[in-house]
Amino acid sequence: MSILVTGIGELVTNDPAHGGELGIVGDAAVVVDGDRVAWVGPAVAAPAADDMLDVQGRAVLPSFVDSHAHLVFAGDRAAEFAARMAGTPYDGGGIASSVRATRAASDDELRRLVAARIAEMRAQGTGTVEIKSGYGLTVDDEARALRIAREFTDETTFLGAHVVPAEYAERRDEYVRLVTGPMLAACAPYAKWIDVFCEPRSPHAFTGDEARAVLTAGRDAGLALRVHGNQLGPGPGVQLAVELGAASVDHCTYLSGADVDALAGSATVATLLPGVEFSTRSPYPDARRLLEAGVRIALATDCNPGTCYSSSMPFVIALAVREMGLTPAQALRAATLGAADSLRRDDIGRLTVGSRADLTVLDAPSHLHLTYRAGVPLARVLHLP
Amino acid sequence: MSILVTGIGELVTNDPAHGGELGIVGDAAVVVDGDRVAWVGPAVAAPAADDMLDVQGRAVLPSFVDSHAHLVFAGDRAAEFAARMAGTPYDGGGIASSVRATRAASDDELRRLVAARIAEMRAQGTGTVEIKSGYGLTVDDEARALRIAREFTDETTFLGAHVVPAEYAERRDEYVRLVTGPMLAACAPYAKWIDVFCEPRSPHAFTGDEARAVLTAGRDAGLALRVHGNQLGPGPGVQLAVELGAASVDHCTYLSGADVDALAGSATVATLLPGVEFSTRSPYPDARRLLEAGVRIALATDCNPGTCYSSSMPFVIALAVREMGLTPAQALRAATLGAADSLRRDDIGRLTVGSRADLTVLDAPSHLHLTYRAGVPLARVLHLP
Repeated sequence: MSILVTGIGELVTNDPAHGGELGIVGDAAVVVDGDRVAWVGPAVAAPAADDMLDVQGRAVLPSFVDSHAHLVFAGDRAAEFAARMAGTPYDGGGIASSVRATRAASDDELRRLVAARIAEMRAQGTGTVEIKSGYGLTVDDEARALRIAREFTDETTFLGAHVVPAEYAERRDEYVRLVTGPMLAACAPYAKWIDVFCEPRSPHAFTGDEARAVLTAGRDAGLALRVHGNQLGPGPGVQLAVELGAASVDHCTYLSGADVDALAGSATVATLLPGVEFSTRSPYPDARRLLEAGVRIALATDCNPGTCYSSSMPFVIALAVREMGLTPAQALRAATLGAADSLRRDDIGRLTVGSRADLTVLDAPSHLHLTYRAGVPLARVLHLP
Repeated sequence: MSILVTGIGELVTNDPAHGGELGIVGDAAVVVDGDRVAWVGPAVAAPAADDMLDVQGRAVLPSFVDSHAHLVFAGDRAAEFAARMAGTPYDGGGIASSVRATRAASDDELRRLVAARIAEMRAQGTGTVEIKSGYGLTVDDEARALRIAREFTDETTFLGAHVVPAEYAERRDEYVRLVTGPMLAACAPYAKWIDVFCEPRSPHAFTGDEARAVLTAGRDAGLALRVHGNQLGPGPGVQLAVELGAASVDHCTYLSGADVDALAGSATVATLLPGVEFSTRSPYPDARRLLEAGVRIALATDCNPGTCYSSSMPFVIALAVREMGLTPAQALRAATLGAADSLRRDDIGRLTVGSRADLTVLDAPSHLHLTYRAGVPLARVLHLP
């Protein structure tokens, strides 16, 4: 069945054919057929369809692509957050408490939690979400997390190398062998991606050599690569991601000139997660510098119970404009097309003929309002009958 | 009819009898009778009531009090916002464009816009809103704005001295005479408060002497006093507010030591509006310094089409924690009890026997989540049958 979505005051297509940063079409319409976009253009030229939905002058965007989220966890860490706001620094150690709560939860409980988080994201305009494991850290718990994640998204990421679990603190090599051996074997069937928290300055995270071992083992098992890098300080994460052809290196809070140059000459996307800087009171990366150097960037939430329990892509966009030097258009592009790029997807993050019909509608006439009206819940995924 | 609201995982009362910054009661219940709170305490001790509502472990707070908002306007200034994010500084000049659009709107159009904005606020947990005039700037247009505002709230504020309108730029004295004479006479019947934008460094705003003339005339007409002060730089606003016994001086972005001392020795509340600093990319005031000096503080949105078109008190609370050094509890207290104080109201901003039954519920177990989950729409005014 086809549906004509009309009355679109401002349509963001991300299609260069329509010009500008966002390929905006004014007074536009979209025809959706099944789960795909069948037609895009000015409302006056729209073809007939089986059904019609008038959005009454609202802006319509490609649904946000949240390319970095840790949704399979139980418990929360509100008290750790409050302590951090009062001055306690973050070093990744709190992850252990989420691991305990997650291991203790039943499959159904985890499934219910993931479903609720995804519903919350859709209610804020997110159409696609990547989900990482990383709060199990045993063969069975990691495989379980990915099995559950796979029920909700194709974009599943094996992150057994999230932290070195407490029980392996004195035998790090053994944990890396577990991750690259039996754990990888158990998880690979449910994962598209492998990821590693490469952060030599945290005793809980992984060195450059350990990260290389994890990533190359994942690649050999058929997984594509993502990296958590350069979050807490300068480090080898970015260079490693570029060298190994990772699709994305995420955080990029602390970058050297050489890191920026390496990214600019690569197909690796720099995924920025300003909700983390907000929630850890850390300095924000300079996104404008990256764009000016020719680096491809994405924005995502990093929704997780420790360093950013926000699921809001509009909040991330507003922060990227206020704090990271992006224009509202650059930020929206990074949160849609850029994030799709970081997942190596060309069927989402844009509204063009043949793309997925993931439409997000704003209770506002323009994408500018995502930042202009920061904090106000304006965006939702458009539910099509 | 009485209603027992039970299953409250965490009840914030702001009642010192329950201890702590927020007077929190765990596993609590509230009995509401008509529009008033009839009973507060542990759920196990709750009396019977005619009806019952179980909030299933959620946190319940006194509804937010948004003590500074400019809701009677037409048009928006998204393009001015985008230009500011690209580097154009703010000096108050853009207000003229809202004045043009507001003057051109019909009564019904303005009424519809105000109603929509209040509905949006309630959906985000705000139970009381102060509404200022200030986009009419003629006798008839200011009186109309207040007449419409009064349909929605008792907290109406005459702000004819919002800016010097363009047509009076060369005859400022004449405009001050208009505001303090015929405009005040026409507006006072619909207003509780008078306010003035005291900011000598902006050519559009008012000097200390002009502000004094406006405030004393308003006081003589029976209005209580509020002041916009020290927003764009150091200035006389705070000292004037304290000297004249204003209930509130709002913005307080740039304060001298003498300003802090004056506030600390007074009953004037310092109302902080961090959404403005967010939306104008200005430095945030140091709220912790004010608290430590013994100053009474409030938080509000300043919802307006120019410098902060956010209606979100949760967003303001999160910014106050991240950027202004408050704990989540201090920020929530300022957004409820502190803001009620700035309106000289003791029936809102708290949940105690006899207070208004303005309950806000969070889709979360604790008030900490307002900041911990920044950007996520968790709060709403509880609708009681």
